[in-house]
Amino acid sequence: MSTFKDLLSDMVAANRILASQGVCDAFGHISVRNPDNPNAYLLSCARAPQLVEREDIMEFALDGTPMHGDTRKPFLERFIHGALYAERADVHCVIHSHSRSVIPFTVTPAQLRPVVHSCATIGHAVPVWDAQTSFGDTNLLIANEAMGRDFASVMGEGNSALMRGHGSTVVGASIREAVYTAVYLEVNASLQIAASGLGPITFLTEGEVEIIQSRLADAKPGEGYDRAWEYWCRQAGVEPCQPGGEG
Amino acid sequence: MSTFKDLLSDMVAANRILASQGVCDAFGHISVRNPDNPNAYLLSCARAPQLVEREDIMEFALDGTPMHGDTRKPFLERFIHGALYAERADVHCVIHSHSRSVIPFTVTPAQLRPVVHSCATIGHAVPVWDAQTSFGDTNLLIANEAMGRDFASVMGEGNSALMRGHGSTVVGASIREAVYTAVYLEVNASLQIAASGLGPITFLTEGEVEIIQSRLADAKPGEGYDRAWEYWCRQAGVEPCQPGGEG
Amino acid sequence: MSTFKDLLSDMVAANRILASQGVCDAFGHISVRNPDNPNAYLLSCARAPQLVEREDIMEFALDGTPMHGDTRKPFLERFIHGALYAERADVHCVIHSHSRSVIPFTVTPAQLRPVVHSCATIGHAVPVWDAQTSFGDTNLLIANEAMGRDFASVMGEGNSALMRGHGSTVVGASIREAVYTAVYLEVNASLQIAASGLGPITFLTEGEVEIIQSRLADAKPGEGYDRAWEYWCRQAGVEPCQPGGEG
Amino acid sequence: MSTFKDLLSDMVAANRILASQGVCDAFGHISVRNPDNPNAYLLSCARAPQLVEREDIMEFALDGTPMHGDTRKPFLERFIHGALYAERADVHCVIHSHSRSVIPFTVTPAQLRPVVHSCATIGHAVPVWDAQTSFGDTNLLIANEAMGRDFASVMGEGNSALMRGHGSTVVGASIREAVYTAVYLEVNASLQIAASGLGPITFLTEGEVEIIQSRLADAKPGEGYDRAWEYWCRQAGVEPCQPGGEG
Repeated sequence: MSTFKDLLSDMVAANRILASQGVCDAFGHISVRNPDNPNAYLLSCARAPQLVEREDIMEFALDGTPMHGDTRKPFLERFIHGALYAERADVHCVIHSHSRSVIPFTVTPAQLRPVVHSCATIGHAVPVWDAQTSFGDTNLLIANEAMGRDFASVMGEGNSALMRGHGSTVVGASIREAVYTAVYLEVNASLQIAASGLGPITFLTEGEVEIIQSRLADAKPGEGYDRAWEYWCRQAGVEPCQPGGEG
Repeated sequence: MSTFKDLLSDMVAANRILASQGVCDAFGHISVRNPDNPNAYLLSCARAPQLVEREDIMEFALDGTPMHGDTRKPFLERFIHGALYAERADVHCVIHSHSRSVIPFTVTPAQLRPVVHSCATIGHAVPVWDAQTSFGDTNLLIANEAMGRDFASVMGEGNSALMRGHGSTVVGASIREAVYTAVYLEVNASLQIAASGLGPITFLTEGEVEIIQSRLADAKPGEGYDRAWEYWCRQAGVEPCQPGGEG
Repeated sequence: MSTFKDLLSDMVAANRILASQGVCDAFGHISVRNPDNPNAYLLSCARAPQLVEREDIMEFALDGTPMHGDTRKPFLERFIHGALYAERADVHCVIHSHSRSVIPFTVTPAQLRPVVHSCATIGHAVPVWDAQTSFGDTNLLIANEAMGRDFASVMGEGNSALMRGHGSTVVGASIREAVYTAVYLEVNASLQIAASGLGPITFLTEGEVEIIQSRLADAKPGEGYDRAWEYWCRQAGVEPCQPGGEG
Repeated sequence: MSTFKDLLSDMVAANRILASQGVCDAFGHISVRNPDNPNAYLLSCARAPQLVEREDIMEFALDGTPMHGDTRKPFLERFIHGALYAERADVHCVIHSHSRSVIPFTVTPAQLRPVVHSCATIGHAVPVWDAQTSFGDTNLLIANEAMGRDFASVMGEGNSALMRGHGSTVVGASIREAVYTAVYLEVNASLQIAASGLGPITFLTEGEVEIIQSRLADAKPGEGYDRAWEYWCRQAGVEPCQPGGEG
């Protein structure tokens, strides 16, 4: 069973992986729900993910207030994380990024959908949230609870949602699942852009997506998420925890 | 003449090369027929190719059963390998991957064909297998012998075949030949995508493909596959075996 | 408050960052206005940015004349820098580059405009200067004061402008701001090219651009430019100065 | 003035640069005319350019015969080099490659032309040679003197020419000039592909190309080719010779 110490190790590893795999650059962030307190989540202070160390991780109440009197500068967009943990009991990890290939699908009519089996965790079709719809001209950032709730309502029960002119957010039942979905959301977007130049695309059927998602949900340690996790840890230069070590 | 020890070295090198050249990421696998037992093949346990060590290599009967009482977790999709060794006496190496540029050709009407001489080993036109055709909604993986045989029948006598919404598989008479074809299948796909944006493409003629394939088949050590192998070993950080050392 | 020594460190760091982030290759250059003499600017002698050391930095009068009797070879195109410092009192840093994704927007009717919030500092729409318009056939370089002034008039009060068949130039109130804009001009161009293949693009509104620019202008140390600066320094293998250390 | 020893150092550096800059992969080759014997040229034995050492360099007569009784395996396509040295007294270096972005222009009606000033050395428009025209179905390689002469006639007095379904060849008055043109032929192709997706392209005028070429021809050491050479040497991990050291 996981310990809090393993969780922090996995958080540092996840930050490095997201940078190494091109999901995050100077910006973007990953949080995990506190396994000992479902009304709180862990998130780094405002730093580039590649640079995040164990000591940078802060704890927040779901309304975005730093806990334990922590006065370090938090990410402005922590309201994305709090809103999703409040709305979705099944969500234990949230990743927000501006990964590059995904952006074009936030500003064009093209809908991001899975073209390949390894990307099925993104869901059958990925919705797009637009800050203009409810809030008019803004700086496009989710900077308060009202915007967070509005965004969460667009994501609904899915695993991923895009933000117009901004980026995307994915969720998962664990750090490894959410990291997997974040990486493959970017991969799928890149593949779909390339395929769009070749003719009409045959996307996965709804039935295929459901079968793949249920197989991954049943996977044992060492399968699916863990094989990718071990590889990505090596690429990012971090030691992986034991399989299943993140809870 | 090759020894079994050289074969294992080449298998480890091939795994690293496939990762280094962008053919495999966390997923994908390469097998070689046992030179001492044509009814068996060697394949790593389920790990990312970049991480495969000599000790990870298992032996399987053509029906996918692990030999020697080995209880490590095998790749689910080993049935691709067994089916091709069963159907094709000329095949001594099989590589399955999800290499990125190839995927768009699995989900669009565009047919993957050689645009440049170095890619002629992929064949004059690359067929696409679709799990839907015979098996309806699945997780798209080749998870049993029936699917393996169905896929092998689509590949026919060629060197490569695509899988809709999934990836591709190439075969060769040796590890170096199959690795060469796997790398250049990806290269050709990338070139064909770029060329598709510029106008109608002049593909190699059938005559050109045949001349190139027969020249490579006649190549002496140090030519063709071996020059690329030496370079790719260096790029992957592994010591190459002696030319021709793989059998 | 900043010292001249910190300024030189930031200049070396900025050169390395521009190379590391793919803004400059063998060519391109960055200058900073002398904080102690607004009629002079600092700019490396003619070298690839990746190779620039503290000792390479020269000082120039706004007309492009080297100061202090310095006889090292200067960049031919230093007239870009002098013209912008002469015309724009708000400009303290100028970066000229041939960054790759931007070039297509200099030779096609497509207008470069911000597609994502992080790129809003490039301005609502980026103008294109063409040497042909006023000077006919040239080698396309800005090789004298007349061309520099002509180019500055096309940039106007904005932060960035393109040069047909050549490259682009960005300005900023500080080194970190200009480096940020140079990196994100390239990012935006890359995103816009990808989006162009998917359908009509929804660009940021003028109101969104204004809100984002004013928020960044008000940012405190550690926000916005500084978070990216710390990350880019790490990627470029240089030690960052203290936040705000560049003045 | 250059020495033969400097020339060999520059040949090794050029091989590494061509690999490092993505012009060559496992294949491709660079030769230099022997400054002491215009009827001979220096070219590595058949190896991947990244691996070429000083000891690998052989000498050939213009008909492709190895000199000095050298029995190492030569490149099959050395006839490209000999034919160009025989036809063109102004040519002192020849580079043949399969650089990736150039290939699409060999198999589509799109004509490769300079889109940006730094690429003007490729010439106003790059011709395409097709082995089919005179030789019918072949393996597409230039494997004898007749094919070499046919190719040289298509290149004419220019600096570059493409080969259908194969690659490209550039020439220069020096190693550094030819390396520069080889790198920027690839850069221009990549830029032109990206620009093609955005609308009709404004290419450099013939007058602009002429002015740029004549300026480069008059450049002093440290300008143009040498600035790029120093940078590319650093990126390739080799020590540059003194400026002008290659003759």
